[in-house]
Amino acid sequence: MADGKLVWRALKKRSVDGVKGLVLSVAQDYESGEVLMAAFMDRQAFLKTLDTGRVHYYSTSRRRVWLKGESSGNTQRLKALKVDCDGDALLVFVAQKGGACHDGYRSCFYRKFSGGMLVKAGKRVFDPVEAYKR
Amino acid sequence: MADGKLVWRALKKRSVDGVKGLVLSVAQDYESGEVLMAAFMDRQAFLKTLDTGRVHYYSTSRRRVWLKGESSGNTQRLKALKVDCDGDALLVFVAQKGGACHDGYRSCFYRKFSGGMLVKAGKRVFDPVEAYKR
Repeated sequence: MADGKLVWRALKKRSVDGVKGLVLSVAQDYESGEVLMAAFMDRQAFLKTLDTGRVHYYSTSRRRVWLKGESSGNTQRLKALKVDCDGDALLVFVAQKGGACHDGYRSCFYRKFSGGMLVKAGKRVFDPVEAYKR
Repeated sequence: MADGKLVWRALKKRSVDGVKGLVLSVAQDYESGEVLMAAFMDRQAFLKTLDTGRVHYYSTSRRRVWLKGESSGNTQRLKALKVDCDGDALLVFVAQKGGACHDGYRSCFYRKFSGGMLVKAGKRVFDPVEAYKR
């Protein structure tokens, strides 16, 4: 964990919606290359991700760290981690169970700007009502 | 442009480092799927991107809109645009000229967390000293 702590220290944190100490984190499917979601990590989420191999984020709305998939079971196993040139963004390569999106899609980016409006461009891979019953 | 304005209005903006009205924007190579960079757009950057077909961002450090590649010539042509479930992040599919990274790499994510530290995992595609002379 010492190494993770050193890397975290070297990152450039941002203040987002009044929450300090966050680093932007983009999750990409390590096999297909599909971008699954974009969120933030704080120090605890980053270290927990490295420690457990399961991706954690910090929710700016709920103001707490959350294990991705803690409600739905659709967890993300950490496969690799990259850092950008400015040290203010992480690219997290993951093995995604089920779908990343709470609306039931594989990727949160299931809406496409087309013909001047947003249209759905993705198939549901799970039933969100069932998944969040637990 | 009216349609872009409506879509922008529907997005959930964040305050980042004290700058209000920003939406997270991830650029992905539309052919290879490589994630090239992560940055922010404000309303002007978003509308200019749609209007010109060249990707613009908002720089929180320089506090202004910038045309990606305005100094280096390494512009990004807009190929497609997706929006995430929460409407607070954009996925921008681009045709990247040269490299996206000001350090001379194709992607800004050229450092990998490996063996407890960050190691370079990418090849330079252009000479940054030459590119930023202009």
